[in-house]
Amino acid sequence: MTVSVVGFDADDTLWHSESHFAVTEQRFRDLLAPWLAADEVGERLLARERANLEVFGYGAKGFTLSMIETALEVSDGTLPAAAVQQVIDWGKELLCHPVELIDHVPETLSLLTGCYRLVLITKGDLFHQESKVAESGLAELFERVEIVTEKSPEVYRRVLQRCSAEPAEFVMVGNSIRSDVLPVLELGARAVHVPYGITWAHEAVDETVDDGECSWLRIDHLGELPGLLGRL
Amino acid sequence: MTVSVVGFDADDTLWHSESHFAVTEQRFRDLLAPWLAADEVGERLLARERANLEVFGYGAKGFTLSMIETALEVSDGTLPAAAVQQVIDWGKELLCHPVELIDHVPETLSLLTGCYRLVLITKGDLFHQESKVAESGLAELFERVEIVTEKSPEVYRRVLQRCSAEPAEFVMVGNSIRSDVLPVLELGARAVHVPYGITWAHEAVDETVDDGECSWLRIDHLGELPGLLGRL
Repeated sequence: MTVSVVGFDADDTLWHSESHFAVTEQRFRDLLAPWLAADEVGERLLARERANLEVFGYGAKGFTLSMIETALEVSDGTLPAAAVQQVIDWGKELLCHPVELIDHVPETLSLLTGCYRLVLITKGDLFHQESKVAESGLAELFERVEIVTEKSPEVYRRVLQRCSAEPAEFVMVGNSIRSDVLPVLELGARAVHVPYGITWAHEAVDETVDDGECSWLRIDHLGELPGLLGRL
Repeated sequence: MTVSVVGFDADDTLWHSESHFAVTEQRFRDLLAPWLAADEVGERLLARERANLEVFGYGAKGFTLSMIETALEVSDGTLPAAAVQQVIDWGKELLCHPVELIDHVPETLSLLTGCYRLVLITKGDLFHQESKVAESGLAELFERVEIVTEKSPEVYRRVLQRCSAEPAEFVMVGNSIRSDVLPVLELGARAVHVPYGITWAHEAVDETVDDGECSWLRIDHLGELPGLLGRL
């Protein structure tokens, strides 16, 4: 079936996000250096984020609260109050960081919007994601903007229903195999993986899956997408 | 025009919310009693929440971060680390609090769903609101669930477009004059105010507005809604 609807992930697909989190995490490791080695701080933070995920969901506010909890734990309560404010200020910086589009994004979307129905499908904090969509200048290129709490096959199914589209005519494009590729393939739709330099450990998956079971296309950057879609 | 679509606010209209925040705020005032009088703590917290609103948006995670910042300020950095963890734990309690429906809610919605198209329109944290909608057991009574970042006339206009409904056939029902009544009237639709015992100071408005300019209906509890809608 010909592709008619193309879904795009936002963070680390259309604009940089994980790189800002990585900078913040490095500062956080430095802050806790008096108490614990950098690698171990990273492990403790990830464990805390994962434990908090079902209470906080995704996004920078939950990340900030997880950093504070990790710092309190690691320092065994000896953390100075000023360090807590420092962590909150980093969280605010993340939330206010200007949107930086990834290479090839605006021209590729402008080209595709004439040929396909484009849908933005992103997970995370509603307030922060809406702000970024508005600031990106890309909102008008999308027929729909769907901000969701988790990217499961069921969530993709509902989005497609709202678009009155069949899985067979849908292609999802994103940087996360876990969120943008696997659940879409499970639905019987197609997916294009565009790797980003950094993958959050929580999103990382074992890529050695059986090709017969589960295959997807991969491109190096979004500029390669129009040609690839033309060949599908 | 006959009413065909009825919008419902969620927090403090369908289930209790502000009462849980009020309990938390009282605990917070007690925590800071060694440094500042309770009333002044409340004022400082509200000022901090308002200042943070454009970065955090609405919801319990932003509220928690604002409590921590207020505590750091008020204690001039002398706050013990354990108190910071205490505040985070209160935030988690808010996020995990079981949904408690307000009186008359399930039977009223069950009655109305046969006669009107029902839409849930709530603002706040996407993850937390979705969790509450799911837990409430009410999701299936609603044709749509719209979780928004702010309830402006423009946001209501977009929701009505998605419902293919005209303002003249829409009635919004909620506890906040600021969010559920005034923007809806501005759009030319109707609104029913169902007061809740407690109003968050940020949502409070001067109710002495000119009746000629801006009028709405008020009921004491949701059980009165079906009769009132029947008379519209």
